[in-house]
Amino acid sequence: MAPDRMMRLPPDIATPALVVDRARLERNLKGMADRAAARGIRLRPHAKTHKTAEIGRLQLEMGAVGLTVATISEAEKFADAGVTDLFIAYPLWPSRQRLARLAALAERVSLRLGIESADAAARLGSLAVLASPPEILVEIDSGHHRTGVPPGGAGEVALAAAHAGLPLAGVFTFPGHSYAPGRREPAARDEAAALAAASSALAVAGAADGERSGGSTPTAAVPADPPPTELRPGVYVFNDAQQAELGVCGDDQIALAAAATVVSRRARDRFVLDSGSKVLGADAASWSTGFGRLLGWPGARIVAVSEHHATVVLPPGSPELVLGETVAAVPNHVCAAVNLADELLVIGDAEVIGTWRVMARGANT
Amino acid sequence: MAPDRMMRLPPDIATPALVVDRARLERNLKGMADRAAARGIRLRPHAKTHKTAEIGRLQLEMGAVGLTVATISEAEKFADAGVTDLFIAYPLWPSRQRLARLAALAERVSLRLGIESADAAARLGSLAVLASPPEILVEIDSGHHRTGVPPGGAGEVALAAAHAGLPLAGVFTFPGHSYAPGRREPAARDEAAALAAASSALAVAGAADGERSGGSTPTAAVPADPPPTELRPGVYVFNDAQQAELGVCGDDQIALAAAATVVSRRARDRFVLDSGSKVLGADAASWSTGFGRLLGWPGARIVAVSEHHATVVLPPGSPELVLGETVAAVPNHVCAAVNLADELLVIGDAEVIGTWRVMARGANT
Repeated sequence: MAPDRMMRLPPDIATPALVVDRARLERNLKGMADRAAARGIRLRPHAKTHKTAEIGRLQLEMGAVGLTVATISEAEKFADAGVTDLFIAYPLWPSRQRLARLAALAERVSLRLGIESADAAARLGSLAVLASPPEILVEIDSGHHRTGVPPGGAGEVALAAAHAGLPLAGVFTFPGHSYAPGRREPAARDEAAALAAASSALAVAGAADGERSGGSTPTAAVPADPPPTELRPGVYVFNDAQQAELGVCGDDQIALAAAATVVSRRARDRFVLDSGSKVLGADAASWSTGFGRLLGWPGARIVAVSEHHATVVLPPGSPELVLGETVAAVPNHVCAAVNLADELLVIGDAEVIGTWRVMARGANT
Repeated sequence: MAPDRMMRLPPDIATPALVVDRARLERNLKGMADRAAARGIRLRPHAKTHKTAEIGRLQLEMGAVGLTVATISEAEKFADAGVTDLFIAYPLWPSRQRLARLAALAERVSLRLGIESADAAARLGSLAVLASPPEILVEIDSGHHRTGVPPGGAGEVALAAAHAGLPLAGVFTFPGHSYAPGRREPAARDEAAALAAASSALAVAGAADGERSGGSTPTAAVPADPPPTELRPGVYVFNDAQQAELGVCGDDQIALAAAATVVSRRARDRFVLDSGSKVLGADAASWSTGFGRLLGWPGARIVAVSEHHATVVLPPGSPELVLGETVAAVPNHVCAAVNLADELLVIGDAEVIGTWRVMARGANT
């Protein structure tokens, strides 16, 4: 007898397939919206996680001021879906092609762009003549050390943007170093401090006290002083094995899983599922205890993935899996899993109640 | 001045995008076809790598006896594209739904199926009544320890298949343990020995001396005694950073890369590209020196990927990359990268000469 799986899967579902528990999704959406509202912080969720029009609309209905995206093509897809306020939180390189696409976008939606260099700012100057030019946010490195300038360097980039005639909205950061055990609180402090320092540095361009946009799912719930003015969490809509591992969510807050079939029994405690890396993704942080989990099977870990195989090891004393049964495999990193799927099956009461197209899947340019 | 990049990218290409060097691809295809023919071994390339009708057709034109796929939906896509001989080299669990799809497929193409359990064999019995029932190959574990029975266990599974009335074609294995430094030769020996032992074990079901289907890109070129009767390499069409690392290919045999833009300069030797894990995939073996390479920049390594960022570190003394320039990023595992893209841009003489749809992208069921 398998233990209760909590997320009840429809019988006879064709596996592998990504399923979304509608009730859990709505609780996750509402929880984040309520917490942001209670703190007086604007919410601009990152849509790269879900890439669906339906979830974007739910986020906006619950009070989000707009959506965040990572690429111009994601912005184009969400503009097509009727979203009117978009922030491309990425240091785009403004090639001639990209400038043309950005100009077309700025005619359709209220557009914000990230930059992190004076060179990029200068090249964006051609957009300053638009009726509604995009607003600029300078990307700050708050400790993740991926992209962004040090807080003190924000002024120089902002000056270049101002010189190019572009309106400055403020500064933004992604505190990605929050993705490690025990790092949520310190990363949230780094984030708040870096945003505050960078915001002050924008005084040189006459733009102090603008937007201080931060937020990752791990830091979004952590009080910080001064708090960001805007949060951009993405993963919280679904959560995933990484968030569970970091203590950011409980198993009952995991709203997306891959319905998978047990295709091979290797030993009492070792089985293979048909949800491999082409379904779950291959993300694994140095601190990850595997490549994913099984809902309702505490202690079970996906210890290896290849393209169409996920090898599960059960903890000592666990009941066995059964050849042919369907289980709910939780990816490590849900953004990667969603981007592999063409559609999400929405489930409620162990029935498929809808199908959402991952309409911005693969929108990387 | 950047060093010569060998794979010449078209100017003004919208990045990130997967590009295929047509001349290199054809050399890779012809090289494998010629080597197999010279050894008298049938070639049944694994189409999960390229997922395109065009490359499948080239493989068949060059003498492949059919194609290998990993899933029923891949088989359906290639049948739609006109391929008439397909082997699903995967231990499918024959649910009622899958049996119906397999029956429909077997009406359209010459179909071979993998199994690794007597349970699965028994359930496939309903297909025995078809005019042309699928032929069965028993999966053997030759040392990779992912799926498949020990060679000596092949007889029991074969007996169950025979009992269910299904024709037996032989045995197959994937020597995935060849994917590690110094393991090609021993893995090829394991593969040949396991296939020979398992083939003999099929005597119990009156089916000895059938197909001995093996082959991975690393082992395909390694002589073994007795050689497999059929090879199923996949990656060789493009190669990738893993194959380069394993010494299986040279840089000039890498036929696919992600055209990527340099979007951030972190230091003299550290830059960020716009081809992240949503383009390259996140695969990294324990022995990988990174998450990918740059064509024409020997010693450069992609040391980190996030969804839209690839961080490159250049070796000491290397010329710098330039903000905004386009480079050719080579994924670790090309099958994962192709499965993230909707299309491949075919290039020749630094021009886009065609666009191939990744028509079996995401075909996981």
